[in-house]
Amino acid sequence: MTHCHQVAPFDYVIFGATGDLTMRKLLPALYYRLTMGQVPDTARIIGTARSPLKRNEYQTRARDALKRFVKADDFDEDTVDRFLDMIHYVSLDGSKPDSNWEGLREVLSHKAEEHVRVFYYATAPDLYGAISKNLHNEGLVTDDSRVVLEKPIGIDLKTAEEINEGVGQYFKESNVFRIDHYLGKETVQNVIALRFANPLFEAVWSGEHIESVQITAGELVGVEGRAAYYDNSGALRDMVQNHLLQVLCLVAMEKPASLEADDVRDAKVSVLKSLVPLDAKTLPTSTVRAQYTKGHSKGATVEGYLEELGHESNTETYVALRAEIDTPRWKNVPFYIRSAKRLKAKVSEIVVTFKPSATKLFPSQPEKNVLVIRIQPDEGVSWQFNVKNPLDDDFGLWETNLDVHFERAFSVRYPDAYERLLLDAVRGYPVLFIRRDEVEAAWKWVAPVMEAWAKNEVPMAHYAAGSWGPEEARQMLARDGQVWHEDVE
Amino acid sequence: MTHCHQVAPFDYVIFGATGDLTMRKLLPALYYRLTMGQVPDTARIIGTARSPLKRNEYQTRARDALKRFVKADDFDEDTVDRFLDMIHYVSLDGSKPDSNWEGLREVLSHKAEEHVRVFYYATAPDLYGAISKNLHNEGLVTDDSRVVLEKPIGIDLKTAEEINEGVGQYFKESNVFRIDHYLGKETVQNVIALRFANPLFEAVWSGEHIESVQITAGELVGVEGRAAYYDNSGALRDMVQNHLLQVLCLVAMEKPASLEADDVRDAKVSVLKSLVPLDAKTLPTSTVRAQYTKGHSKGATVEGYLEELGHESNTETYVALRAEIDTPRWKNVPFYIRSAKRLKAKVSEIVVTFKPSATKLFPSQPEKNVLVIRIQPDEGVSWQFNVKNPLDDDFGLWETNLDVHFERAFSVRYPDAYERLLLDAVRGYPVLFIRRDEVEAAWKWVAPVMEAWAKNEVPMAHYAAGSWGPEEARQMLARDGQVWHEDVE
Repeated sequence: MTHCHQVAPFDYVIFGATGDLTMRKLLPALYYRLTMGQVPDTARIIGTARSPLKRNEYQTRARDALKRFVKADDFDEDTVDRFLDMIHYVSLDGSKPDSNWEGLREVLSHKAEEHVRVFYYATAPDLYGAISKNLHNEGLVTDDSRVVLEKPIGIDLKTAEEINEGVGQYFKESNVFRIDHYLGKETVQNVIALRFANPLFEAVWSGEHIESVQITAGELVGVEGRAAYYDNSGALRDMVQNHLLQVLCLVAMEKPASLEADDVRDAKVSVLKSLVPLDAKTLPTSTVRAQYTKGHSKGATVEGYLEELGHESNTETYVALRAEIDTPRWKNVPFYIRSAKRLKAKVSEIVVTFKPSATKLFPSQPEKNVLVIRIQPDEGVSWQFNVKNPLDDDFGLWETNLDVHFERAFSVRYPDAYERLLLDAVRGYPVLFIRRDEVEAAWKWVAPVMEAWAKNEVPMAHYAAGSWGPEEARQMLARDGQVWHEDVE
Repeated sequence: MTHCHQVAPFDYVIFGATGDLTMRKLLPALYYRLTMGQVPDTARIIGTARSPLKRNEYQTRARDALKRFVKADDFDEDTVDRFLDMIHYVSLDGSKPDSNWEGLREVLSHKAEEHVRVFYYATAPDLYGAISKNLHNEGLVTDDSRVVLEKPIGIDLKTAEEINEGVGQYFKESNVFRIDHYLGKETVQNVIALRFANPLFEAVWSGEHIESVQITAGELVGVEGRAAYYDNSGALRDMVQNHLLQVLCLVAMEKPASLEADDVRDAKVSVLKSLVPLDAKTLPTSTVRAQYTKGHSKGATVEGYLEELGHESNTETYVALRAEIDTPRWKNVPFYIRSAKRLKAKVSEIVVTFKPSATKLFPSQPEKNVLVIRIQPDEGVSWQFNVKNPLDDDFGLWETNLDVHFERAFSVRYPDAYERLLLDAVRGYPVLFIRRDEVEAAWKWVAPVMEAWAKNEVPMAHYAAGSWGPEEARQMLARDGQVWHEDVE
């Protein structure tokens, strides 16, 4: 039933190994894959960072991270010991040519021929070029060496091109694995299965039957301690340009020729390139940006974004866009994309609303059919449809719900996105990573939005923390006769 | 939300008032509708039968029936008293012209003008003509009087025509309400809502997307004490000619012009008339008949049909037919109809199997999409579709289930079919009753089957009690590359 084959022995070199991402995501993900039998015991995980740590000190940190971020039930002492045995540490500033490269070379020299070499950049993206150059100059980049790039790949098209260029000088594109952890989410990948493995969906997956698509990623939490960092990005850069446009691609793409990486990525990039550019005329009505103000979240009063930040800001904590895709399949079907901090609920979902029934057969107009693909939490699918009201002798209708909760239905743990992605890089399986042209096409499409917002051509709206967002976003949909899917209590 | 309006005051005259159907179904149904506020207190229920009972004796029997067949929670002493106050009894043999008609006339004479008059024939069908004639001769059939006919309407086309003719001489067709209690089932009516109130189903409801349809009504129980009676009918007459062909009509009909009775019945009868007649060539491969033999049911050893009956018999306890409908919508789509006693499970359901996905995208062929409409028990809808196997890193698929159980979802009691139908006759709402031409068209289609079987042109097959039926039925579907839906443990 399962096909998590053991991968080849590997050396995973992590730059930024003492950082939050490594502790919270990367080490737990590799640990889980060891428990599943997918990681060979001869594999090595080589942490590098500037801190002057001994190997056993870093192993202790790693152990603490597992203790904190692996579920108690899954924390198995024997396996943890095996995992820690794989861990090495090299004190090294990857961005400096004169740092401790000798230390890294020494660790890597052991069985170098037999091990797949993967570099994982979990540092600030503006260092990616320098690290690549240093690795190259030190002779550590073999022909098969892979490099995994954490987001964000730049803060606009220009910086993205610079990063891609900086890395691309030393790694060929087929060895560059750009992480978008949304693509590692099972429920996002599931869009491909839902669409193409079910003739019933395939038959209705177009503007002939679909009225609109909503893609939402909303968080309950605010920016809290990360306000200063967040203020440099904002919801559009942080979530839309990468994750939500990737989801949109999977929902909207034509059937790829195969599930090979380049076929899937060709299909996706074709969607990105078919997005109708927003311009001076459409920007004010097709984009909404907003900041949260003081409000209530989970019963507590919480500060507004500007209070948390402590100064004025032009950065949005809420974004809603109305996109159109210029293909025959999606003619006249609006795609609404929304992401925010401090929403009323934590919700990532795709909502497909079908056109209303044309029939006048029933005493009342049937509700529209709505398909909801829940990305997280509570991964699953629900479908709202109409049945006869059993208490009505005159054929009144009731709306009901076909619902499946995957974790319950399958009695399996839903793996974290990173588990999958980390080993895909070892396997050389790039389908869930972003190709350079995709990153750049996505930046190209959001560029006019960023520019117009920077020039305040679209006013900053506001919404109370813990609400469903600003009135302006509601109005944007109302103009199309649509409403946001907000059925969480 | 609910629309069970109170109906006009009525006089419900039941012929066969001491019989099993009256006690088990009719009186409890009327009681439930009184509790729901649908029956006015001035209504009268007038039982008639040959037994020389006093009114209070019959009321005692009625009370006992409610005690037995109404759920304890729903048995409310005050309401029962109000219900019993409505009950009258006339000792009368409806088939005899010289019986106690005076007694019936006397009860009916009270407020006759203001009450809707309904005659319910719960007697042997060969008495329907005589009762109608006597009612007419006694001047008890007013222009608005309705008559409700219990099944079976005949045992073949000829006897059905005789019954319809016998009743039709004294009641105009618009006042004749032929009961098919399957049509009173909420989940059967729901087929109309599912198909026509949900664009997603409407879009795929044809041979373009549907591969086959199965309609099953199976019982766990055998014929037991009713062997002698049952031996006169058999599964084809008892279930297929009436109930299951009605279900088939709802699944297959074109959209009716409205939900008015004649529009719906026009749409249904058009399906019956489009059924491709079975002939000498197709009968042997498109019909299966069988009797159950000794076997196991619910852990106990049970007798075979012939043992229960005590003599040889040519009557089937199992029937499976393969029907084709000669319309553009259903070209090349087989409809399999199956009914049996002593199956492995009690199940009434409609199973719509969609054509397999044509895509080669996935490492394995996706399972077919299957929609199951459960008529009873556990009324609901489930839909089997494919999702990504979350444990498979290579896009393997898993089959999953969207499922809704109406009673749980709506937290309402699902009413018994008779509740609805009894008051529809009072309301003069005939959409859930069978028009004369429907009965006769159905008999016409099953006639060649009955004839071939009577002549033993199709051999009698056998199946162990408690199994899913004979091997011959499995083979019939296997020839089309299909399998019966039998997923009950």
